[in-house]
Amino acid sequence: MAKYTNLKGTRDFLPVEMLRRNYLFDTISEVFRTYGFSPIETPAMESLSTLMGKYGEEGDKLLFKILNSGDFLDGVTSSEDYKAMTRQISEKGLRYDLTVPFARFVVQHRNDITFPFKRYQIQPVWRADRPQKGRYREFFQCDVDIIGSDSLLNEVELVQIVDKVFGKLNISVTLKLNNRKILAGIAEYMGHPDKLTDITVAIDKLDKIGFEKVSEELLSKGFVQSDVEKLKPILFLEGSTDEKLTFFRNIFSGNEIGEKGAEELTAIFTLLSNIKLKIKVEFDSTLARGLSYYTGTIFEVKANDTPMGSICGGGRYDDLTGIFGVPGLSGVGISFGADRIYDVLLALDKFPEDLQSVSKVMIVNFGEKELPYCMKCAELLRNAGIATEIYPDDSKMKKQMGYADAKKIPFVIFIGENEIQNETVSLKDMISGEQQTVALSELVNKVKG
Amino acid sequence: MAKYTNLKGTRDFLPVEMLRRNYLFDTISEVFRTYGFSPIETPAMESLSTLMGKYGEEGDKLLFKILNSGDFLDGVTSSEDYKAMTRQISEKGLRYDLTVPFARFVVQHRNDITFPFKRYQIQPVWRADRPQKGRYREFFQCDVDIIGSDSLLNEVELVQIVDKVFGKLNISVTLKLNNRKILAGIAEYMGHPDKLTDITVAIDKLDKIGFEKVSEELLSKGFVQSDVEKLKPILFLEGSTDEKLTFFRNIFSGNEIGEKGAEELTAIFTLLSNIKLKIKVEFDSTLARGLSYYTGTIFEVKANDTPMGSICGGGRYDDLTGIFGVPGLSGVGISFGADRIYDVLLALDKFPEDLQSVSKVMIVNFGEKELPYCMKCAELLRNAGIATEIYPDDSKMKKQMGYADAKKIPFVIFIGENEIQNETVSLKDMISGEQQTVALSELVNKVKG
Repeated sequence: MAKYTNLKGTRDFLPVEMLRRNYLFDTISEVFRTYGFSPIETPAMESLSTLMGKYGEEGDKLLFKILNSGDFLDGVTSSEDYKAMTRQISEKGLRYDLTVPFARFVVQHRNDITFPFKRYQIQPVWRADRPQKGRYREFFQCDVDIIGSDSLLNEVELVQIVDKVFGKLNISVTLKLNNRKILAGIAEYMGHPDKLTDITVAIDKLDKIGFEKVSEELLSKGFVQSDVEKLKPILFLEGSTDEKLTFFRNIFSGNEIGEKGAEELTAIFTLLSNIKLKIKVEFDSTLARGLSYYTGTIFEVKANDTPMGSICGGGRYDDLTGIFGVPGLSGVGISFGADRIYDVLLALDKFPEDLQSVSKVMIVNFGEKELPYCMKCAELLRNAGIATEIYPDDSKMKKQMGYADAKKIPFVIFIGENEIQNETVSLKDMISGEQQTVALSELVNKVKG
Repeated sequence: MAKYTNLKGTRDFLPVEMLRRNYLFDTISEVFRTYGFSPIETPAMESLSTLMGKYGEEGDKLLFKILNSGDFLDGVTSSEDYKAMTRQISEKGLRYDLTVPFARFVVQHRNDITFPFKRYQIQPVWRADRPQKGRYREFFQCDVDIIGSDSLLNEVELVQIVDKVFGKLNISVTLKLNNRKILAGIAEYMGHPDKLTDITVAIDKLDKIGFEKVSEELLSKGFVQSDVEKLKPILFLEGSTDEKLTFFRNIFSGNEIGEKGAEELTAIFTLLSNIKLKIKVEFDSTLARGLSYYTGTIFEVKANDTPMGSICGGGRYDDLTGIFGVPGLSGVGISFGADRIYDVLLALDKFPEDLQSVSKVMIVNFGEKELPYCMKCAELLRNAGIATEIYPDDSKMKKQMGYADAKKIPFVIFIGENEIQNETVSLKDMISGEQQTVALSELVNKVKG
């Protein structure tokens, strides 16, 4: 019997987990909608020609591939090379992220959607990764993007969205901002514009491995000691965002790409100064987020009160849809790591208390005679939007109360001859233990209040 | 470029479709919750040992199977038989329906859930069917079940749920009820208790092929003319539900299983008489719904105003989890065919009008100088829950207005020097075309009203 379980790396969601997940997804999508983003969805399966080659060699391996239907061996040349074989017997794969299917969607429907196109998308993705704590083979991404607009107002609104989401979730976070052009400016300032990737990869690790190791790595990549000396004051830059930006505007004088990066960030911070934010927003010139397809602003969000790594990140990309034949559409977006945010809410005990039970009321079942009156009460409550169950069987009282307890249903109603005669119910508050007789006409208010 | 499209039989959902689908799913799940059902979810992938053999030979073929990761050919004995090969190179499949994964879930988590277990589940399922109009390879099921209770109150509440869902969706439907035991009673009454399946299969087609053909089919299966004569008055039974039930109680006298069926249906209709229903509920002794795992009540719902076939159906099963080693758990449930109900709503033009656009307001972007005031207005509206966009670029007025038009945004706001000085906005109602100056302090009420 033990063999029939969910697959490793996947999860069943039980009712309490679902209520919490729905709260999280509803909160996030409500904020997205408030800022005018519309939902879209794409299918779980995509053609492998859409997916392959978009995530690097490692990504290609981690794609779940679907066996062709019917006699998939028909016409296949026998092969001992599984990669060659895969191409012959599989032409579909499971969604690996939301970005590539979104790019395919934008290209395919470009005549049916309105640009600038503001969309959000909350769907599971699948990766054949080795399962481990906090890393799943099926997990959920919540992406919000605007495509077809260069305006930095988009970046500003994404910061506002992050602020609103974590404000509503009551989690204290810090949002770090950088710009790919600042990183390119630093490479140019160091005299190695061609080595942007090496510099970025090294700098990105500063938090984890420290300056000594970063220096070593750079020296091993062909940089000399004077390059590292030039970089040092940048890595240890202190002060307010204004002071940091002034520093870069100075050292980037005549360094076109660096100047542009500093200018873009300055514009974003200037617009943000018009808005009250709850979260801390800082400029961090070492933030790179690995992804080489970012071309402008880079975002990263971390929780302040628990060590969970990045829970949210994104940036601007200048050519999302070029891979599918439509170049020149600039976009910017952020992805919320739903599973990590869930874990933060759990670790900090920030889920609302009323997510324990769908049902607010259970009516005890004493048998056939009382049932019509029970049904009448239940309908009264349900029509007022109060989730109500009648215990389906006239089981022993202990069993029925045990059910209400286990499900953490906050109110239980008892109905006997007296109650029916007087058009009342006996209402028990399961938290305080208090029990009282309530007229039917007062019942909804009593339960709501 | 044309090759990068969604796969045949799958669908992309664009914003307007998503708003409509969310309206449908939200309406259905809100009703489920009102009756005390909790959401659960299971993973898209299950072990093939969980799925295979549960849907018949045809079902096994239609399961999407996932290629094992890594070198799946390692250790595989070469084979020309694709079925033997499949067993060696694939051990995971995509969810084919919600019922089998739910049974697996109940068995696996039986110590963590509370019985009677009331759950609903809204998720996509995948079948490698030949795609055709209205039949998809990825489609959505909405299932609601209660497991671990024999009480007929469950059947009654499912009828109430159907009534509430279609009442809220404003679709006129008829719900037909039958009971597997009535069908067994008829087989016994005809003197062929062993031929229940033949009788059921034939009777089920009465609507489509008529009595003559049903007779022929029965005669070809070894029934004789006198059997058919005995069946005829049953198939052509007219009258109210009460009259029909009285008829069956008479002919089933001493026919134990038939009597039980008539008794169960009588109990359900008696309980239903306590409740006001909007939908028509009738007893139809020819309703069988093919599925042999139903053991008691059978439900089927059809729309009255459009020929769409069954849009919702279900029944009672006495042994859902027996296949996974836990026998004896009785359950009853209904599945709402989301894609068909969507098509009915579309055909009858019953989607609410305000599902055209997420955004209620667009603020025209005149440039940098006005932007801080635009952002202030937008925040005012968003904080009141009104979805608001600022057009991100200071493009030409025609382009900005074209965007608002295309997205069917109902209000557009213009902000110039005067508006900023006077703390007002110019608000244009895009439906009436009317434009007026509104004080910031009045803006939220004006847009909401």
